[in-house]
Amino acid sequence: MKKVYFTVGPTQLYPTVKEHIKTAIREDIPSISHRGKRFADIYKQTADNLRRLMGIPSDYHIFFLGSATEAMERIIQNTVKSHSFHLVNGAFSKKFFTIALQLGKMAEKIEVPLGRGFDIKSIKIPEQTECICITQNETSTGVSVPTSDIYYLKHVMQSCHSERSVSGVEESHATKLLSGMRSLHSSADSVGMTGPLVALDVVSSAPYVRIDFSLADMTFFSVQKLFGLPAGLGVLIVSPKAFEKSKNLFEKGAGIGSYHNFLVMEEYSRKYQAHETPNVLGIYLLGKVCNDFLEKGIDTIRKETEEKARVIYEYFDNHAKYKPGVREKKFRSLTTIVIDTQGETAKILPYLAENGFIVSSGYGEFKENQIRIANFPSISLEDAERLLGVFAST
Amino acid sequence: MKKVYFTVGPTQLYPTVKEHIKTAIREDIPSISHRGKRFADIYKQTADNLRRLMGIPSDYHIFFLGSATEAMERIIQNTVKSHSFHLVNGAFSKKFFTIALQLGKMAEKIEVPLGRGFDIKSIKIPEQTECICITQNETSTGVSVPTSDIYYLKHVMQSCHSERSVSGVEESHATKLLSGMRSLHSSADSVGMTGPLVALDVVSSAPYVRIDFSLADMTFFSVQKLFGLPAGLGVLIVSPKAFEKSKNLFEKGAGIGSYHNFLVMEEYSRKYQAHETPNVLGIYLLGKVCNDFLEKGIDTIRKETEEKARVIYEYFDNHAKYKPGVREKKFRSLTTIVIDTQGETAKILPYLAENGFIVSSGYGEFKENQIRIANFPSISLEDAERLLGVFAST
Repeated sequence: MKKVYFTVGPTQLYPTVKEHIKTAIREDIPSISHRGKRFADIYKQTADNLRRLMGIPSDYHIFFLGSATEAMERIIQNTVKSHSFHLVNGAFSKKFFTIALQLGKMAEKIEVPLGRGFDIKSIKIPEQTECICITQNETSTGVSVPTSDIYYLKHVMQSCHSERSVSGVEESHATKLLSGMRSLHSSADSVGMTGPLVALDVVSSAPYVRIDFSLADMTFFSVQKLFGLPAGLGVLIVSPKAFEKSKNLFEKGAGIGSYHNFLVMEEYSRKYQAHETPNVLGIYLLGKVCNDFLEKGIDTIRKETEEKARVIYEYFDNHAKYKPGVREKKFRSLTTIVIDTQGETAKILPYLAENGFIVSSGYGEFKENQIRIANFPSISLEDAERLLGVFAST
Repeated sequence: MKKVYFTVGPTQLYPTVKEHIKTAIREDIPSISHRGKRFADIYKQTADNLRRLMGIPSDYHIFFLGSATEAMERIIQNTVKSHSFHLVNGAFSKKFFTIALQLGKMAEKIEVPLGRGFDIKSIKIPEQTECICITQNETSTGVSVPTSDIYYLKHVMQSCHSERSVSGVEESHATKLLSGMRSLHSSADSVGMTGPLVALDVVSSAPYVRIDFSLADMTFFSVQKLFGLPAGLGVLIVSPKAFEKSKNLFEKGAGIGSYHNFLVMEEYSRKYQAHETPNVLGIYLLGKVCNDFLEKGIDTIRKETEEKARVIYEYFDNHAKYKPGVREKKFRSLTTIVIDTQGETAKILPYLAENGFIVSSGYGEFKENQIRIANFPSISLEDAERLLGVFAST
């Protein structure tokens, strides 16, 4: 029986991918030189498509890495001299924190229990913070950080750095706040009043999540999640401000790594190349899938994602036994849906598999008590309904 | 017209690869979990096949990286506190040296003119050297370092470290020397008389080159060369001694990186996993091609490589105008053959392409004056003869 992978990554290939791989092989893409014009055209096409799809400003750099984990390492190496600050609420945000420690930084964190969101207004960011590291969508727990919370945080920090009082900022003013932030941000920068950088892990939410890049200095994801591609490629998007920080650290003699430091990557990406021989096929396929997404329309993909999420959450909100693992609706991820199974994961997984559906087990300590259902573009509403149908017959 | 890629990497896919990719897709390999048993089985199979194919001892670690360039960075990070020493004779050996400098090490080098080999006996290795970095096959110039020279160097260093005189070592005793080195090496280690580590770049010579792993502490390559696979995967083989060095540096508080330091990679590789989501498809395909090589027999592959190299070099040794770029036969690479074109590269490349053959241009300053012809297992003797036939008709 042909299986449908509702796994949180690696996952079901996006339906067009098999055909793109065939075309790639027919056109010798794995054999072309990574220093030639054909590859440069592919690189440019992929970067251009990503910019259009995600609304990435033209002065932001797009770097290709081996994985999202590598992105965490390169972010810390390139933009943190000593102090990073981490919002930790699961395995992947913890990994980011651990990497900072491994690289010898004074990493600090605020940690909340697994399955919970952050009370953003209560977070006190240490004054020396150079980079706030946020896992916007925690693949391990299914908790997402609302982007408005991220922008609030960034705003508060900027206000502090520019020695303005932030006491007047009210949550009810969120909309005003967001619309006013861009100008604050750019005017603050122009007079040197720069707050800390924000690094955003959107591994399992891009390109669904809407990102205001004027407030996200580094954003990264890997391709084996929503893009429905084979694993082995990470994407890191870097703002001019983050790039400047890297340059600044380099000039001060701080170690920012070698072939994958921002300076080297920028130098090569300007030529639509990488320093090393990169994952040529992966970059080609990413460009093709971005194009498919653009043709379908990102708004359509977002609407479909929201509709599928609604159907799945509604089902489990009304289920007698299995309930969404994230209680508070505002923190529920729409792309990685975690369900409490009352310890029945080991029973559910093989039953689903027999019926042609593969979902992920819970992560770490929740291995036996949760399952994780990916709600990625590779999965149709019909697939989701069929999956729920199988649940109904348990 | 279907083209044959004689390029030095990325290159012609090994003939079985297309079928392996089809099978992989049919069997959902890009969708399986990198934490599940199926992936662990694939990882183990690939590692086992590599061990058999290349004669890698069972206590050596096999790590998967994003590229061979990453291997250079990880080697320096993990095994060099301050002093590395580099044999530089081309772009890739120079890259290794540059990476060491970028990582803040006191890197020293001996450099010879491009196209030349090293007079191994004249090399004076600085006393504090922790790791000797050698590019066994320089893809940029087509110069290879005879493995006997590498082992000689390692031997001399060990002798120095154990305070024995090396003055009696004669080149004519090479065979004796080599056969006697294993015992010296292990006895030296057991009493703590350890010389510097040797890191060996065999990017464009593995698995053709025979490696005595008891004398090579770190060995690395990427898969888009002789293995004829899509780029995006590097392999690093690490001896227990090199691993100990890494552990030692870590315990002394030296920064050895984060998710791809030797300690983390060893911890995961023991479970046949990687810390990050790795290039699952790449690891699968590498295992399959290793298996194909094993079935064909590595001796057969070596013989075929030597026969093709003989035919190609003989042709150009007798060519009126185009001559092998490496004059001294003992330094000529059998896998990446560089030809001087008297400035006619820009004429030759399109002519070959019209006839269905793609070769690489010269590297860097030799872009216009050389071509590089890959002699990899993907290429048959008939392909090579057809290529030479096209040359004959210029």
